[in-house]
Amino acid sequence: MANLGENSLMTGLLSPASQTNQKAEPKRKRIRRCRSAPLAEFVPGDLNGKNEATMLPRSESCLDKLHPSFKRVAIFLTFYLVIGTICFSFVMEQIKGEKINEVLDAVYFCIVTMTTVGYGDLVPNSVATKLLACAFVFSGMALVGLILSKGADYIVEKQEMLLIKALRMRQKLGAAEILKELETNKVRYKCLTTMAFLVVLILVGTVFLVTVEKLDIVDAFYCVCSTITTLGYGDKSFSTKAGRVFAIFWILTSTLCMAQFFCYIAEFNTESRQKALVKWVLTRRMTNVDLEAADLDDDGIVGAAEFVLYKLKEMGKINQEDILLVMEEFESLDVDQSGTLSPSDLTLAQSAQT
Amino acid sequence: MANLGENSLMTGLLSPASQTNQKAEPKRKRIRRCRSAPLAEFVPGDLNGKNEATMLPRSESCLDKLHPSFKRVAIFLTFYLVIGTICFSFVMEQIKGEKINEVLDAVYFCIVTMTTVGYGDLVPNSVATKLLACAFVFSGMALVGLILSKGADYIVEKQEMLLIKALRMRQKLGAAEILKELETNKVRYKCLTTMAFLVVLILVGTVFLVTVEKLDIVDAFYCVCSTITTLGYGDKSFSTKAGRVFAIFWILTSTLCMAQFFCYIAEFNTESRQKALVKWVLTRRMTNVDLEAADLDDDGIVGAAEFVLYKLKEMGKINQEDILLVMEEFESLDVDQSGTLSPSDLTLAQSAQT
Repeated sequence: MANLGENSLMTGLLSPASQTNQKAEPKRKRIRRCRSAPLAEFVPGDLNGKNEATMLPRSESCLDKLHPSFKRVAIFLTFYLVIGTICFSFVMEQIKGEKINEVLDAVYFCIVTMTTVGYGDLVPNSVATKLLACAFVFSGMALVGLILSKGADYIVEKQEMLLIKALRMRQKLGAAEILKELETNKVRYKCLTTMAFLVVLILVGTVFLVTVEKLDIVDAFYCVCSTITTLGYGDKSFSTKAGRVFAIFWILTSTLCMAQFFCYIAEFNTESRQKALVKWVLTRRMTNVDLEAADLDDDGIVGAAEFVLYKLKEMGKINQEDILLVMEEFESLDVDQSGTLSPSDLTLAQSAQT
Repeated sequence: MANLGENSLMTGLLSPASQTNQKAEPKRKRIRRCRSAPLAEFVPGDLNGKNEATMLPRSESCLDKLHPSFKRVAIFLTFYLVIGTICFSFVMEQIKGEKINEVLDAVYFCIVTMTTVGYGDLVPNSVATKLLACAFVFSGMALVGLILSKGADYIVEKQEMLLIKALRMRQKLGAAEILKELETNKVRYKCLTTMAFLVVLILVGTVFLVTVEKLDIVDAFYCVCSTITTLGYGDKSFSTKAGRVFAIFWILTSTLCMAQFFCYIAEFNTESRQKALVKWVLTRRMTNVDLEAADLDDDGIVGAAEFVLYKLKEMGKINQEDILLVMEEFESLDVDQSGTLSPSDLTLAQSAQT
């Protein structure tokens, strides 16, 4: 549903009433004001932050909110790596394995630990370093979760347009058409973009391992697979100076990309199912039983808003508890008990409160 | 919102009308029929399956739908392990490292690979085994995703009741009170239950490594941390026969538990934010501008259903596109253009269609 959300939001921001007019007015003028309620952007503070891992599709609409989060993630990551480098540089003699350069090894060890690749080419060899590694792997995992939920999504969204342009090059789509295409199939393009990234990263990694680390092609591919899945058997790893510099960037990017790809696949599945459900609900025949059940105020007829509520509930977008929660507020505002709210109700209700 | 969803569903199933009566009727009889629309359970087939990774909170209401999924996951897992054991048993001589027993090692290697722990105490040593390992780690990751999305949640839900009973032992809560407590703080109890599991698993693992594998306490704890995070440096791993038998079950359980814990933490954060948003929307003062915007059918007054729609939109639970989609169907059903649906509209609309 994310694409629908953003679509309506964008149109809503440009001209609050135009959208309804396009669709409803040609038929009949009666229902012309589906105005935009102040959506999530209008909410102050952090309420509106979002977490990709648990994906509340509606709050996804706030693309511009992602920028500060992305910065914050970058700051956290830098902070983690600086602290990690300092800590592990100091205790490098207590870490055994193939060493090349104190600072480089410390950063490399941090990255291999935080992404849970854990080759084992460098391993802690004292009580202090072992406990330090435990602390760093847990904080690293939390950080990776944060990166996945905030940063990666932002980068993918930046890249999608390029992908669609490439895919549709021959059709010469205008900017507006590309945007529309993007909104309608948002999750699909996210999957495709991430997959394209992933393929590039796998190729780059394999080529690098073959040319710089002098592995044969199967070993290089095996090492790449073992790394991006964070398996990290460690029989093949980065053992040259150039290899470790490359590894620092490549491991971080490719493991995150792989994880993000899995997230998008899951999102895609959910969205497909959700879309099928919506379609089923909308094409289902209404019966008189439905009509009676939809009649919220029990006046024998079903108004437009009652009908919408009933169908949205059927789609699973809202539930009975949501409705009851708001109904309580409605009844406290409806001072004259007319079953409707008018400006005079508001005045009465709010003067009674104060 | 998941807890709210299930709550309303359960009450709804027991007695469709009782819930509204409890809350609304004491005030005024007018709005008494917030009947349950046929919710997601009524949808045929697989539409209603769910994926925890992307968490559509509303479709979570179908606890009983989880049983078949759980079985399916168990079948997939068995299938994966059987295939893996057969494959790796055949090529065990092409895998180098500390070997104990052909079949046991094959299962152990499968588990270490699918969970991406990848100690490296057993590593593929031929082109065929390397490519086989690549195939198994990717399919293993997909399977772990499936387990996390279906199976783990089911097990946690089974355990929650015990946890609450333990936490509230002195208060002697009745079954109904425990259920209510559970529904209200569902995600919090999921976090707690998983954390309790995790602590037990860490303790069991550490004790086992100290007593059976004869590691000292720091090494044991370090190996446990390195395993549950799937880091798997591999300097400490399971090298006895008893150790590997234990490892097969313990690694699978503990890595899944850890991953699930992270998922629940993320869900908890999102839910807290969502609850704060709902509270903010419900306590915000209505203005005449809001009232005008909420007036969907433009008749100058705001009915109960219009008010509910407006507020739900403000909470970000539904968006303009959702409403427009359903409004289109409403207008096609409203044959006499009265702005309301009555049984005669339905009859007319459906005879026109056929």
